[in-house]
Amino acid sequence: MKDKYLGRHILVEFYNCDKDILNDYALIEEHMKKAAELAKATIVESVFHLFNPWGVSGAVVIQESHLTIHTWPEYGYAAVDLFTCGEEVDPWTAFTYLKNKLKADRTETLEVPRGIVDKIKKFSTEEIKEVKYKPDAV
Amino acid sequence: MKDKYLGRHILVEFYNCDKDILNDYALIEEHMKKAAELAKATIVESVFHLFNPWGVSGAVVIQESHLTIHTWPEYGYAAVDLFTCGEEVDPWTAFTYLKNKLKADRTETLEVPRGIVDKIKKFSTEEIKEVKYKPDAV
Repeated sequence: MKDKYLGRHILVEFYNCDKDILNDYALIEEHMKKAAELAKATIVESVFHLFNPWGVSGAVVIQESHLTIHTWPEYGYAAVDLFTCGEEVDPWTAFTYLKNKLKADRTETLEVPRGIVDKIKKFSTEEIKEVKYKPDAV
Repeated sequence: MKDKYLGRHILVEFYNCDKDILNDYALIEEHMKKAAELAKATIVESVFHLFNPWGVSGAVVIQESHLTIHTWPEYGYAAVDLFTCGEEVDPWTAFTYLKNKLKADRTETLEVPRGIVDKIKKFSTEEIKEVKYKPDAV
């Protein structure tokens, strides 16, 4: 596969979500991990934290980059990042799953390519022949 | 403080970095945590992972959101995200520190406001009077 970029990064704004869900630490972690699995990502490790008096932050490191979430239950708002590499993983699957699970009434997204191959080659002082998001098996 | 948005998110592309540094798991974690501290963020938890045969991924969850990194040592490239909330924390301090520590020859950044207050209010079915990035002490 010759990619034009290494990864796709979707910045998601979830508005008017279910406030109780946004403050449920265990549920948020469960939904985020499930979102990663459904997107066909491989989970490496995850950390989730419940703030006092409310709000959840968490990161799921995947072999193909990461998924993160920060929730403000008091406003029904969550900021989610879905950063994946490779054609096998689809961040939009994770997006749809989370939209439903958080009961987001309104969403906004921005997709940003990360690691544009032409730039990596252009800005390198060493010659790079081919850029792949992961090394061939050794 | 009346914010116009909850957080600032800088998407960073670091090109032509020091390849050995990009593959040094412990050093990357050290630099990322130090970057968080210098930006005046409070670290909650962090996870870092060294891939086989190379490459490092990591996330630092901070009270004010997160810092993440994914490195491709073979191309001298790293994708970094610096997402912070509140005026006290300056993601650009973290940016400058990491740029120097990774010896990035060339950088590109995109700053995206997260959780725009007017949208949070507009899209909420309940009336929200004031939006603050963290609750008042209770």
